[in-house]
Amino acid sequence: MTNHAFYMELALKNAQAMKGQTDPNPLVGAVIVNNNRIVGIGAHLKAGEPHAEIHAIQMAGAQAKDSTIYVTLEPCSHHGRTGPCAEAIVKAGIKTVVIATLDPNPVVSGRGVRILENAGIEVIVGIKEEASRKMNEVFNKFIAENKPFITLKAGATLDGKIATHSSHSKWITSEDARLDVHHLRNENMAILVGVNTVIEDDPELTTRIPNGRNPIRIVLDSTLRIPLDAKLVTDKLADTWIFTSANYNEEKKYALEKLGITIFHTSDPRHVNPHEVVEVLGEKLISSLLIEGGGNINAAFLENKLIDKAIIYIAPKLIGGKGAPTFMEGAGIDKMNDAVDLVDTDIIKVGKDFKFVGYPIYKNDETIEG
Amino acid sequence: MTNHAFYMELALKNAQAMKGQTDPNPLVGAVIVNNNRIVGIGAHLKAGEPHAEIHAIQMAGAQAKDSTIYVTLEPCSHHGRTGPCAEAIVKAGIKTVVIATLDPNPVVSGRGVRILENAGIEVIVGIKEEASRKMNEVFNKFIAENKPFITLKAGATLDGKIATHSSHSKWITSEDARLDVHHLRNENMAILVGVNTVIEDDPELTTRIPNGRNPIRIVLDSTLRIPLDAKLVTDKLADTWIFTSANYNEEKKYALEKLGITIFHTSDPRHVNPHEVVEVLGEKLISSLLIEGGGNINAAFLENKLIDKAIIYIAPKLIGGKGAPTFMEGAGIDKMNDAVDLVDTDIIKVGKDFKFVGYPIYKNDETIEG
Repeated sequence: MTNHAFYMELALKNAQAMKGQTDPNPLVGAVIVNNNRIVGIGAHLKAGEPHAEIHAIQMAGAQAKDSTIYVTLEPCSHHGRTGPCAEAIVKAGIKTVVIATLDPNPVVSGRGVRILENAGIEVIVGIKEEASRKMNEVFNKFIAENKPFITLKAGATLDGKIATHSSHSKWITSEDARLDVHHLRNENMAILVGVNTVIEDDPELTTRIPNGRNPIRIVLDSTLRIPLDAKLVTDKLADTWIFTSANYNEEKKYALEKLGITIFHTSDPRHVNPHEVVEVLGEKLISSLLIEGGGNINAAFLENKLIDKAIIYIAPKLIGGKGAPTFMEGAGIDKMNDAVDLVDTDIIKVGKDFKFVGYPIYKNDETIEG
Repeated sequence: MTNHAFYMELALKNAQAMKGQTDPNPLVGAVIVNNNRIVGIGAHLKAGEPHAEIHAIQMAGAQAKDSTIYVTLEPCSHHGRTGPCAEAIVKAGIKTVVIATLDPNPVVSGRGVRILENAGIEVIVGIKEEASRKMNEVFNKFIAENKPFITLKAGATLDGKIATHSSHSKWITSEDARLDVHHLRNENMAILVGVNTVIEDDPELTTRIPNGRNPIRIVLDSTLRIPLDAKLVTDKLADTWIFTSANYNEEKKYALEKLGITIFHTSDPRHVNPHEVVEVLGEKLISSLLIEGGGNINAAFLENKLIDKAIIYIAPKLIGGKGAPTFMEGAGIDKMNDAVDLVDTDIIKVGKDFKFVGYPIYKNDETIEG
């Protein structure tokens, strides 16, 4: 019995350990097994350096011959900075290649497998596929669609509220959960809020962890109401980009630009279309976006089917209050069966709060109307 | 090393197995250990029959002498239908008594321990105390306060809503979660809703599991607006009790009573005071109450600090809608730090939903004002 899952898990673990140091490349790990002994391990450590397979093959040396290599991502077929891994595998005399998931880039997906199979190598695809896919979910989305992977983050009470009826919201979640949010900010290239959040809370939206990376701060502000003395405008802790409608105030725009703020104007005269925002961010090579909006910003992204992942911190407390705000408002759906379901769900305890993670599945419009 | 926890867990497991068949008595289990061997096990099986300790002592026979007995509840000191267990333990020559929790009845709590200690027996209290207390949480509350143990049950979307903005609510949770609710109904002696729920949904509030016990159905209806053709009025599937204000309509009351409905009128002319309802239910020997109200009924019980336990089913779906109802409305609190915190929290997966369980801790009024 070959223990594919065991070896692939080790490859995944090594890949995962490099989180944050491979950008803009994906996380990849590899394990080489010969005669039931591990003879090589590898991971992609840094863009520009060898891929995981190459490290593992070097470690295996002569024992790579007739071995099985486990690799979390389809070996590449392109002549990039480190040469195509599929050819290196052929050259090393490896007998079997076990792959967790194919290349997410539709242009090259499957090409590595074809090179291997054409060389007479046995190829098995799909071992721990889901785990590998999730590990690189940001990379996969960006490489396939050239748009950021969008994570909705909210913190709510058990009774679903993000503030009391009198708009008091400090603090809903515990310190542990708030620290967790700072890790999310560290991992995302940009963070997005609505101008109302800026006016009401004057947040910094920075990462408060040691050696943390501050995300680019993005504000949707259709009429440029942002105060010139808002921290996001003045604190210089990170770049601030404002998306406004076609109907912005030229003078205010000039004032903001003079303060170092980047302004993008979108086509609609009344509001900022989330699709346009996402497209611009993709062009600017922003691969990951964290949305920390209020209920209306969040609903605008949900209605436009733009949220890829939801992370909701639920504080075990009850506050009541008819009309106290929730994290998802907007118009809302009419019929319960038109709800956006979340799958691959999980809840873990973070301090005394609960952290929910799930992935929205959008019904296509026909189904909704049907 | 004595393995107190191991033996007490066995006693708890046997006690728990009798759930539903000991009413109105609590669940109790016992294990007797002599020289590292289990020589007797027992549980209380049915009111009127021997207590757990007696069964275990009988099984142990002569080996009860110099043994250690583990019992999940303080041995009784009263000459009830089966004689005081504390004295039986003394008579059997048991050397050590390990107790999970003292008797919850303040009048007799500690008396069993005193009888044992006066006879020179070593007594250890508090092993697995929390688990034993929780196992009999309903009994404990009722015996100590003569009021029902009140469980709030609600099903909400991940974004905190119990219906869409247009009041559509079928279904929020999955079939598995709804089956779980029927078990809750089976376990509770009464179930409470507001008249608006009756008018809008015309529910049966019965237990739809094989051999299930239907709870008494309680409706808060300050002006007797309940329709005479509501299922709760006509279906005879279980008793229906209506609590109305001092300002009820005599004619409607008469019509309802003719249909077999029991009406209780409370003292306030405008609304039904939840405290009065709870007191009446205690007098009627209702030891457990499940609240399945809308946001206002739930908030009335929360504001009056009457909810002992909250069970919230969270469906992993998003529906949005400013003003879509949540399960906790009313006036609500002003400042986030006045929230009612829940402790001993847990979340488990039930089908594709999540079942949250927690126990509210009410701050005293001084703290809230301070």
